[in-house]
Amino acid sequence: MSSFRKLGMDELERLSAEDARQKAVLPVVFVLDNIRSLSNVGSVFRTADSLGLKAIYLCGFTGQPPNREMEKTALGATDSVQWKHFPDVMDCLAYLKNQGYLIAALEQTTESTPLHTFRCDEPLALVLGNEIHGVSEEALAKADLVLEIPQFGMKHSLNVSVSAGIVAWHLLSAALKEKF
Amino acid sequence: MSSFRKLGMDELERLSAEDARQKAVLPVVFVLDNIRSLSNVGSVFRTADSLGLKAIYLCGFTGQPPNREMEKTALGATDSVQWKHFPDVMDCLAYLKNQGYLIAALEQTTESTPLHTFRCDEPLALVLGNEIHGVSEEALAKADLVLEIPQFGMKHSLNVSVSAGIVAWHLLSAALKEKF
Repeated sequence: MSSFRKLGMDELERLSAEDARQKAVLPVVFVLDNIRSLSNVGSVFRTADSLGLKAIYLCGFTGQPPNREMEKTALGATDSVQWKHFPDVMDCLAYLKNQGYLIAALEQTTESTPLHTFRCDEPLALVLGNEIHGVSEEALAKADLVLEIPQFGMKHSLNVSVSAGIVAWHLLSAALKEKF
Repeated sequence: MSSFRKLGMDELERLSAEDARQKAVLPVVFVLDNIRSLSNVGSVFRTADSLGLKAIYLCGFTGQPPNREMEKTALGATDSVQWKHFPDVMDCLAYLKNQGYLIAALEQTTESTPLHTFRCDEPLALVLGNEIHGVSEEALAKADLVLEIPQFGMKHSLNVSVSAGIVAWHLLSAALKEKF
């Protein structure tokens, strides 16, 4: 017999969609700019719900809820995560700066900060760019810093929803270590 | 003008598939047991390539390369990551124990270790279970420990490839902090 008993649904302390929207634990906003795949967008919603992010801002041609394809991976998280659409990412970044957010882009550049060395005590907006072209030059120019996930293999590229999960976990884990 | 210049393909120090297979930087093996979605399996391959994992062991009805659906998310990583198939996960876990691996299951149980408190200096195998049913009871019974990603939202569930990326990053980031 295993000494590990799986938790039942009633033991998971799951929040209602409305409570989850209000009780974000991490002052972090994801900015999805021109993300092509609705499945990626849905997956980022699910991660944002689970790890307690504040909001997702959908820019450019990134799909918006309600969307049947997105729901296949969001699994309801489009109701429990706050979101907003900005046709132009530059308006989104101006809005976030005005709200006091530090703007970080996730990209491989000449001046990137390796993620494992990054600590942040202020509200953070993370810009995730198109699956093929990455973060746009104009958005990069508005970023306060660029974060990079160190990579070692053949491709040096990660799926955008996996990358989003990695950065969210990195920030959450630092916050949890301080709080508990 | 941005002060951040994106790196070109020739600046990324990308490895050949063969070099990537040999030069895994993390002594970590993912065990995928009865994973239904080929897209999830492919995505885990891509992450394993990128973050330098040692191998992926595919158990039960988890799909195996070569597979056209899997390649849509693996993007070639099935060539650069070592993998093996075990019809029965129990044979896989016995093999890994014999090779000196610590066996961790990713699950929400009564005795889980929250991921942010976890440090590991030995070779680690991480068991990821079915998208609906999680890690099987028999695999849980063979685990040395259970890891849990703390979750705060409505669903208390993460996509399996996002979870895999989070745990891989957690281990890689600790290793990078020690080394550099």
